[in-house]
Amino acid sequence: MKPPFIALITDFGEDDFFAASLKGVISQINPLARIIDITHRVPSFDIVTANFILFSSYKYFPLKTIFLVIVDPGVGSSRKILLVETKKYYFIAPDNGVLSYVLEEEDIEHQREITNSRFFLPESSQTFEGRDKMAPAAAWLSKGIPCAEFGPIVYSNKYFLGEKSQIKGNEIIGYVIYIDKFGNLISNIPGKSLNSLEEKTDRKKFVLHVGGKKIRSFMQNYSSVEKGELLFLVGSVGFIEVASREASASQKLKVKVGDRIQICVDSE
Amino acid sequence: MKPPFIALITDFGEDDFFAASLKGVISQINPLARIIDITHRVPSFDIVTANFILFSSYKYFPLKTIFLVIVDPGVGSSRKILLVETKKYYFIAPDNGVLSYVLEEEDIEHQREITNSRFFLPESSQTFEGRDKMAPAAAWLSKGIPCAEFGPIVYSNKYFLGEKSQIKGNEIIGYVIYIDKFGNLISNIPGKSLNSLEEKTDRKKFVLHVGGKKIRSFMQNYSSVEKGELLFLVGSVGFIEVASREASASQKLKVKVGDRIQICVDSE
Amino acid sequence: MKPPFIALITDFGEDDFFAASLKGVISQINPLARIIDITHRVPSFDIVTANFILFSSYKYFPLKTIFLVIVDPGVGSSRKILLVETKKYYFIAPDNGVLSYVLEEEDIEHQREITNSRFFLPESSQTFEGRDKMAPAAAWLSKGIPCAEFGPIVYSNKYFLGEKSQIKGNEIIGYVIYIDKFGNLISNIPGKSLNSLEEKTDRKKFVLHVGGKKIRSFMQNYSSVEKGELLFLVGSVGFIEVASREASASQKLKVKVGDRIQICVDSE
Repeated sequence: MKPPFIALITDFGEDDFFAASLKGVISQINPLARIIDITHRVPSFDIVTANFILFSSYKYFPLKTIFLVIVDPGVGSSRKILLVETKKYYFIAPDNGVLSYVLEEEDIEHQREITNSRFFLPESSQTFEGRDKMAPAAAWLSKGIPCAEFGPIVYSNKYFLGEKSQIKGNEIIGYVIYIDKFGNLISNIPGKSLNSLEEKTDRKKFVLHVGGKKIRSFMQNYSSVEKGELLFLVGSVGFIEVASREASASQKLKVKVGDRIQICVDSE
Repeated sequence: MKPPFIALITDFGEDDFFAASLKGVISQINPLARIIDITHRVPSFDIVTANFILFSSYKYFPLKTIFLVIVDPGVGSSRKILLVETKKYYFIAPDNGVLSYVLEEEDIEHQREITNSRFFLPESSQTFEGRDKMAPAAAWLSKGIPCAEFGPIVYSNKYFLGEKSQIKGNEIIGYVIYIDKFGNLISNIPGKSLNSLEEKTDRKKFVLHVGGKKIRSFMQNYSSVEKGELLFLVGSVGFIEVASREASASQKLKVKVGDRIQICVDSE
Repeated sequence: MKPPFIALITDFGEDDFFAASLKGVISQINPLARIIDITHRVPSFDIVTANFILFSSYKYFPLKTIFLVIVDPGVGSSRKILLVETKKYYFIAPDNGVLSYVLEEEDIEHQREITNSRFFLPESSQTFEGRDKMAPAAAWLSKGIPCAEFGPIVYSNKYFLGEKSQIKGNEIIGYVIYIDKFGNLISNIPGKSLNSLEEKTDRKKFVLHVGGKKIRSFMQNYSSVEKGELLFLVGSVGFIEVASREASASQKLKVKVGDRIQICVDSE
């Protein structure tokens, strides 16, 4: 029999007792649950980053995995706690938009507010609802409690975090949405959107503009250029990514999240 | 059947092979043990921090969890290795006071020194007794070996780490015992101790003094004030905590562990 | 029945979605696999460090553990992906020398190149072969697929990373290969090599030279000297190690990886 998986994304860090308390609570309620840490190192209160990390990893997890996403600047306020069931997965998170990227892509079956205090710890604090409400709800769900018992269906606003990239004639405009630990700049430009340009031309003519520089090496992998050289490619999440072989593009280019990226076709 | 849980707190960090070696040893001896990392990021040799993190998280773990707490400046010396059985849990740690907070709260059944080398690795070093003695002992214990086989009963001194907060008339005096990753200042003042003041007055009149500042917002949760504003509340561990909404109270106040906190009633 | 263990060493860090994607992929293919993080904090592209961490921890893991070692500056290039079966363990890693220390010590049964795309994710990227090829191969191996199905036998060059220590008469010369989080300097001088000197003399006469300083305290454990004092000892991995009690030898001595260490016998 397959064990139930619960995957965690939080901004709790790993220095304190926060993430450990979640794991304790889950194991107390369902000792057979398999807990996987996605990351606890989301910058404090950074909903956009949590969104992107969830989006980049969730589809590699087993079907029916329960994702517990706790980046919750509104903890203790009247913001709702959501339980979303999609065709493939479950998501539990505060209703602050942290599931936006994922819910754009998944087929939503139900979206509920978790209100049934039968699934909360007996003494719930207002400062750590991750431990006192969300983790126990995830654990009970993993034991087979049906979604409907957790609370009523709600129609949350779907937030969209940030703008999409735009194709304007022979040019695509986007921006940096994430910088990874290697210093690769991940943009919001889907790799596929280059096809609209590609038909008209040859990939060697693509030029990417970022941080005042032009990059002309559009490659398949990092090893296709010399060490330290800048390149761009379709990264492992499917977006256009600017990198530097065995070095940090972020440091070289002094670019930050939000900075503009433009791809065009060199007319010469 | 419930798997046995072993929860780890160390100052080993996660960069090296130390924490991994513990997990390897445990899995070699008991492949069915479920290992949960509480944290490996206790500052080197910092017994007080380890104590507090254990205290803040242990009661959320399954009954009979074995807590392996390795912050051990005296490794290889004559300090004892303890195995403590309480009504609900087991604790294995060097006899240096790192279990003080927890043992004040738990009902101790037996306290033993682990001496039986049958439960150690065959080649024990004097520099890594966590790997060579404590982890194997925890793993054997998780397989059902009775406590009595590990060594004789000992009467360890109960250290007490630091002073308790004091109530003097209409005033409570304590200090900062922990600063979490969000910059919240956790004090040694139990939330309940405010009841002795509260009877006489109204919570809006409470004033907290710390780092030369007066804070007057005594709230239920972080979201009750404006972003960046300072407040105090009863935190998730049950102690009075000074926070700043979506910001770091520690940075704002330049306060450090050990600094004095005073709560009194505004007489005006 | 024993669960199959998969142990991970990468340079992915824990901030991003990389390590999580590996764990997702493995759990999708084999939900019963037990994943243990050795570390994800190898400095980016640092093959020597990964080598040493693997070497220092692997033998403490259960027999038949699959070690997945992904520090892969050549990702997407023509470098091979290796599957090595030894008498006791399996290792999956890029063919870049990252297994050198371990393979010097283990009895190799077969060494194969993983080429069979049946065991890869359907859509393999060229930028994240850890997720798309190595993690799935490890997961399929853990389900009992025989090694021979993954690809043909290859005779990889055995790289050797760095030089061995040398004994010259009454003197041993080596260098610092690793600095741990406590600031201990781990050398490439096996503790046993002191026996060749020891027969001729008494251990109190040993002197260690490093960073322009002489250290005369050759002890069994860190607690044998005063706080802050420098000493050397045979560390938990079996190599000569320079330490400072409850302090950082690395900070005190301003020594770095690669710096020379010399041990000799004081003739006076």
